Amino acid sequence: MDDKSKKLAPAELNRRKFLMNSMGLVGGAAVAKTAMAEEAFLPPAVPSWTRSLGPGVLTNPYGQPSKFEAHVQRRNVEWLTADKIASISFTPLADLKGIITPSGLVFERYHAGIPEIDPSKHRLMIHGMVSNPIILTMDDLMRFPSVSRIRFLECPANGGMEWRGAQMEGVQFTHGMLSCCEWTGVLLSTILEEVGVDPRASWILAEGADGSHMSRSIPMEKALDDAMIVYAQNGEMLRPEQGYPVRLINPGWEGNTCVKWLRRLEIGDKPWYHREETSKYTDLLADGRAREFTYEQECNSVITSPSPEKPLSGKGKGKGKYWVEGLAWSGRGRIKHVDISFDGGVSWREAKFTSVVEPKSLTRFGIEWDWDGSPAMLQSRSVDETGYVQPTYAQLRAARGTNSIYHKNAIHTWKVNADGSVSNVQIS
Amino acid sequence: MDDKSKKLAPAELNRRKFLMNSMGLVGGAAVAKTAMAEEAFLPPAVPSWTRSLGPGVLTNPYGQPSKFEAHVQRRNVEWLTADKIASISFTPLADLKGIITPSGLVFERYHAGIPEIDPSKHRLMIHGMVSNPIILTMDDLMRFPSVSRIRFLECPANGGMEWRGAQMEGVQFTHGMLSCCEWTGVLLSTILEEVGVDPRASWILAEGADGSHMSRSIPMEKALDDAMIVYAQNGEMLRPEQGYPVRLINPGWEGNTCVKWLRRLEIGDKPWYHREETSKYTDLLADGRAREFTYEQECNSVITSPSPEKPLSGKGKGKGKYWVEGLAWSGRGRIKHVDISFDGGVSWREAKFTSVVEPKSLTRFGIEWDWDGSPAMLQSRSVDETGYVQPTYAQLRAARGTNSIYHKNAIHTWKVNADGSVSNVQIS
Repeated sequence: MDDKSKKLAPAELNRRKFLMNSMGLVGGAAVAKTAMAEEAFLPPAVPSWTRSLGPGVLTNPYGQPSKFEAHVQRRNVEWLTADKIASISFTPLADLKGIITPSGLVFERYHAGIPEIDPSKHRLMIHGMVSNPIILTMDDLMRFPSVSRIRFLECPANGGMEWRGAQMEGVQFTHGMLSCCEWTGVLLSTILEEVGVDPRASWILAEGADGSHMSRSIPMEKALDDAMIVYAQNGEMLRPEQGYPVRLINPGWEGNTCVKWLRRLEIGDKPWYHREETSKYTDLLADGRAREFTYEQECNSVITSPSPEKPLSGKGKGKGKYWVEGLAWSGRGRIKHVDISFDGGVSWREAKFTSVVEPKSLTRFGIEWDWDGSPAMLQSRSVDETGYVQPTYAQLRAARGTNSIYHKNAIHTWKVNADGSVSNVQIS
Repeated sequence: MDDKSKKLAPAELNRRKFLMNSMGLVGGAAVAKTAMAEEAFLPPAVPSWTRSLGPGVLTNPYGQPSKFEAHVQRRNVEWLTADKIASISFTPLADLKGIITPSGLVFERYHAGIPEIDPSKHRLMIHGMVSNPIILTMDDLMRFPSVSRIRFLECPANGGMEWRGAQMEGVQFTHGMLSCCEWTGVLLSTILEEVGVDPRASWILAEGADGSHMSRSIPMEKALDDAMIVYAQNGEMLRPEQGYPVRLINPGWEGNTCVKWLRRLEIGDKPWYHREETSKYTDLLADGRAREFTYEQECNSVITSPSPEKPLSGKGKGKGKYWVEGLAWSGRGRIKHVDISFDGGVSWREAKFTSVVEPKSLTRFGIEWDWDGSPAMLQSRSVDETGYVQPTYAQLRAARGTNSIYHKNAIHTWKVNADGSVSNVQIS
């Protein structure tokens, strides 16, 4: 078949009709030009990859994304932390779909780089106010009953750069210290039952095996509720930067409490006030006092498309129907509903949930929007099953002042410009 | 701190007590030797990775597994197919946890290798008995309402080698043409509404853009029920070997009907009887007739640990408590319950579900087992919400004979030997 000599097939003509009628494409001249250039690839013409064999089996015993997706990657901000060895990379939320974050794209936060731990030599010690202190190997841990749960993981500094009005260009940077995985491991309560906790004990210190000895104090209530000692993530063993071979997960709580490379759990009767719960991860209020042990990540949401990375600039650039979608989450339970505004919070329409709706998990929402081509202010506002409503910036600042960099969950605004580009703006 | 001069700490002594008491470890001399060799790594001694900095941020913009997990990979069987270009690799089920299969480890089946498709040049044509035939770009497709669903994907030849009594050593090969991902895309019914289907139409041909032009006939009922045009898998765009940039997913149906690299959907009023639904993917019965269009994957299950790859040989090798776990699935809906036998089907105990339980999805189950150290025959038997009970080999052969290689879902048996090793045996 000679691709170049082919005439436009009827289906091709219909495509143009389809785009112009249903998708709001304008500018017939531009369409005709595009269609001509692409003719060689269009059915019923047969592209080169349909007329050849591809590489065979086992060229990739562990598969990788297409080379055409190389732009989808974690990114950091050079100026955010004092040293690269204690920094953050951000999840590329704009390019992700559904609620599972691929393990290779889960944001990273660490305080002394990524230790390379040999799992056969790693040990987890559980001691302190217990009857039977133990030191577990990974093989030991695998012999306890396990559970698998889909839960989000978020750094409490997520959005912190926006707190006082910074406007990062891209949802990867405004909200990208966020992920959601299926975590598998042993409930901490199962292990505590094994060691026999002193009835007077009320706190647990979790300590990491990395060079920073990252450690946080965890109340016993959380340990006995849903805290997990986790060894697997999205079906396979944890990734090195996510705590391989074992970490703590406190569902719905600040990511830093989910201590990675977990080496030691000490049972006690008061918090330890270690470095990372005093110099960091406390919230300075307007009156000079600081909130401490603010573990829960409050109800939050963001529209991931359109966004600065996903302008309204597809084939049907310009007015027409678009699928507006995003993510909602709450550290207190399930998302109950999400409303979307296209006019900066004046009017609202309820979005549909398009994924499973698990507690303390990301929930994907979407809504169809017939864009008239004029500038618009897009917002999402989530409500969780406790009835908590995501606040405006004005409400958040009234309650917490402007000193904190943690626990920013104010309603976010994307401005859609007339040319389809999307900007980050703040509406109080 | 001088690691080498450290005495065993009290916690270390307790570890031995723990393993001997709770985990069934025998042989005190061996324990003492192991403990001495490992002393340098044990808390409160501080291993080298806790006394140093690891590599910093953005060494891996797209993360990879630990080098200690390099053995967890897809594998194939050289003799299974006539040519490597049309072959199969198997998911390493024994090493996986939860229900999500990491995209890099999802089994592959293809008929002409893996095409490398430029998504900006790929087109999906929908034509035939419709009012408005269309040709969609990937950008067009992204503008339709999307859904994300966790669904299993299985080749109907999964277990086919066992049909007449072959005994593959490893759950990777007995059941590894199996996976489960969160798939995101557009419901086929949404697209069919857009093109306007002729009321007399009853079948759809799905054709791939690979060199084999892989194609299957799909009944209209399925298309209007839950079939999806999928572009994302576990949060990111499809992997090349899974159909990048777009494929069909028919939840619960034979993997081959979920045509990859989807290029064309033709709407018609009868099946096409293309190559891959006549020479293959039909089931020869004992009387010489063949079942055709046997789309549904029946209720099935398998224990993934213990298994040949996961012998009872951890630190506490020998009798004691173990966590027995596995996967159950049904193409007809949710798994309702799973029973486990430790005596080759004489007596049964109900397992717990330890993951989310979605329809047409893998479901993870587990049960604690106190092994007395003598040989045992482990089986799992699943029941789905339609009441269908996974059959024995005798029941399956009575119904279908022994000619078929597709739709083997008989109860599988692992023999645990006295030394903790695990063998594949068949009990009819």
